[in-house]
Amino acid sequence: MIKANNPKLQSWLDIPEGSDFPIQNIPFGIFKTKKQAPRVCTRIGDHVVDLAKMNDLGFFEGIDLPKNTLRNQYLNDFMALGKSTTRAVRDRISDLFNKRLRKWNAKEKADQFLHKVESVNMLLPVQVRDYTDFYSSIEHAKNVGAMFRDPKNALLPNWRHLPVGYHGRASSIIVSGTPIHRPKGQSKAKDATKPSFGPSRLLDFELEMAFVIGKSTELGDTVSTSKAEDYIFGMMLFNDWSARDIQAWEYVPLGPFLGKSFASTVSPWVVTLDAIDPFRVKGPKQSPKVLPYLEYEGDKNYDLNLSVDILPEEGKGKTVCQSNFKFMYWNMCQQLAHHTINGCNLNVGDMCASGTISGKNKNSYGSMLEITWRGSKPVTMPDGSERKFINDGDTVLMKGWCEKDGVRIGFGEASGKVLPVK
Amino acid sequence: MIKANNPKLQSWLDIPEGSDFPIQNIPFGIFKTKKQAPRVCTRIGDHVVDLAKMNDLGFFEGIDLPKNTLRNQYLNDFMALGKSTTRAVRDRISDLFNKRLRKWNAKEKADQFLHKVESVNMLLPVQVRDYTDFYSSIEHAKNVGAMFRDPKNALLPNWRHLPVGYHGRASSIIVSGTPIHRPKGQSKAKDATKPSFGPSRLLDFELEMAFVIGKSTELGDTVSTSKAEDYIFGMMLFNDWSARDIQAWEYVPLGPFLGKSFASTVSPWVVTLDAIDPFRVKGPKQSPKVLPYLEYEGDKNYDLNLSVDILPEEGKGKTVCQSNFKFMYWNMCQQLAHHTINGCNLNVGDMCASGTISGKNKNSYGSMLEITWRGSKPVTMPDGSERKFINDGDTVLMKGWCEKDGVRIGFGEASGKVLPVK
Repeated sequence: MIKANNPKLQSWLDIPEGSDFPIQNIPFGIFKTKKQAPRVCTRIGDHVVDLAKMNDLGFFEGIDLPKNTLRNQYLNDFMALGKSTTRAVRDRISDLFNKRLRKWNAKEKADQFLHKVESVNMLLPVQVRDYTDFYSSIEHAKNVGAMFRDPKNALLPNWRHLPVGYHGRASSIIVSGTPIHRPKGQSKAKDATKPSFGPSRLLDFELEMAFVIGKSTELGDTVSTSKAEDYIFGMMLFNDWSARDIQAWEYVPLGPFLGKSFASTVSPWVVTLDAIDPFRVKGPKQSPKVLPYLEYEGDKNYDLNLSVDILPEEGKGKTVCQSNFKFMYWNMCQQLAHHTINGCNLNVGDMCASGTISGKNKNSYGSMLEITWRGSKPVTMPDGSERKFINDGDTVLMKGWCEKDGVRIGFGEASGKVLPVK
Repeated sequence: MIKANNPKLQSWLDIPEGSDFPIQNIPFGIFKTKKQAPRVCTRIGDHVVDLAKMNDLGFFEGIDLPKNTLRNQYLNDFMALGKSTTRAVRDRISDLFNKRLRKWNAKEKADQFLHKVESVNMLLPVQVRDYTDFYSSIEHAKNVGAMFRDPKNALLPNWRHLPVGYHGRASSIIVSGTPIHRPKGQSKAKDATKPSFGPSRLLDFELEMAFVIGKSTELGDTVSTSKAEDYIFGMMLFNDWSARDIQAWEYVPLGPFLGKSFASTVSPWVVTLDAIDPFRVKGPKQSPKVLPYLEYEGDKNYDLNLSVDILPEEGKGKTVCQSNFKFMYWNMCQQLAHHTINGCNLNVGDMCASGTISGKNKNSYGSMLEITWRGSKPVTMPDGSERKFINDGDTVLMKGWCEKDGVRIGFGEASGKVLPVK
């Protein structure tokens, strides 16, 4: 257990109650200001902490941190330093902000490296190399299978034997707060003889978590479930925006393409696996027994609360989903062991998303497709209007947090507003 | 028409007859030597030409070429300079090597920038950002549909309305000459009740061409068919290695994943669209009429011969496929217009492959799956042995070339040897 996880730690910095970012979290991100180029930062309470400046001031003395890794548009070079270094940075930050220690006099120089979060721009923290999307929630897979195929055989034969996944588009992964335009494309109505072209009518979100690769492999290498966590630097909230009408027409036989590639929204903070370590829980029992390369030991799921709100342009919003990452049938270690079993190599900056995270209860379904059951049961908003899918002007807001023994480790927000078709 | 395309051009450098690389070609690549870090180069005849050194010697005077774009591990920065610059470089090289001009005295300094091709290592020329694989040969799609579904309804309903494509794995794209290990993974025999694990038994190639993006777009932008060629820097040979047994078990419902992501082999030379401009031909008639955003004007296919040889570890090889890029139903401009119609953004270094290029005749089928019709009609090799798919020790060698009026513009080779499972 690293020091930063101590629930008794308190900071000299004022941290609002219920903040996602106590000094037990210490996530990593990239910020810029009007005057200043992008830099690596962390967040404590309502402050963004400039780690490049702290390094200049000598606070990371004894840790081998090449300057350009912190004055950087992306976290990739920082992550590539390895967990022994990035852990040392996290522990040092914890000490520097610790109320009881104060031995480096960080508080006295705080105005040089602290920024109010409202005063900076948070950027996409990772240069995403390859992006893979899994499909690892059994409730989601069953819901989709029941809707589009056969409720009695909702799962396809391979589903319980391997974590089904597919390659996604990396270029269109954007940071929370970036608006998206409703995509246009081809779709075909059930009774039409040919497809038509226009704005998507069935724009949806998918509530997911993503993990980021911090250690590369060579082509031909495999990563076992027991070693997988060495390769996972941390996690983010992930909204896998989906245009259901475009997807339905295009996806046979080679999978989703333009129905997904117009945008995916991630939260700006990469929360380390170390930070959420105290929240490990057992995953669901897997039956039938998996093949040996997918077996694992220990608790690999996390009790991580998730929520989705729809916020209309005017009036009150509504929470449409409350789910939990612990529902995942396939865990991240299994996903990574499967991903590499054929020798596929990993790069620092690869991102793997979980697939929609749905639970058993209807209020835990992670997409409008499931929540409204293909639009047949619309959601009523506080102003009386209905939503089958997402309207122009709506903002979709995702949040995630672990909470136990008075400590809350949060992921911040993945938020995106839908603008009309461009 | 740019100057380099003049069929009458002759070089002072000795170019072997039948070479893929006359001074009408001037492709771009990356090489290194034992003493020297990676640099941008071109190839003329059997010589690799060090463009960084030529720049040092002042041969590109008047062209704005930042030094670091040529001393570089990848072509991305060079391509990003834009076609007006990269065309100027191509034209200048053509002049410098022109027998009649010789005004810059290039020949006199040739020993400073020429290397025998055998004496250098050719590297992967592009840092591949996103990689997309299309499925645009109608003969291939029909063959696969007939084999796995219904010969009478071999094409799925969407196939003639849009260029079906999916995202592929960028990290495992490797340069010609790099051996690959036979992948292992899950597969399920037809009569088995559960999957088994082991080396792929059905390792296949797919004969494809890939194009490389040289100009980026912003999220939300679209690229019309008439502008698409501005974004395509050039083309390469592409072997989309496929493990048919892994693919068959995993690919429903989200498409190919581990059956493809273990390796894809590209040729080391990016041949510019300018170089193959004289070889434009009409594409097949498209029926039914496509939607307006997929309509195009002019000749967008290319008469580009393709071949595949299987070379066993010992004994003679055999040409198992002779195909042509002109067979493509969907052309590159349509693929790119479709790819971006939802606002998906492009990065310099994105790669789009055509999908397997099969013709109508059996000797033009672009994969062993089709050539041997799922293994039912094995190929007999010169030593009497049979091939249903690719054996350990076999090298798969792809070649491509345009030829007309005594000028041959070739793509070199995409070659890869299959080693036993690691």
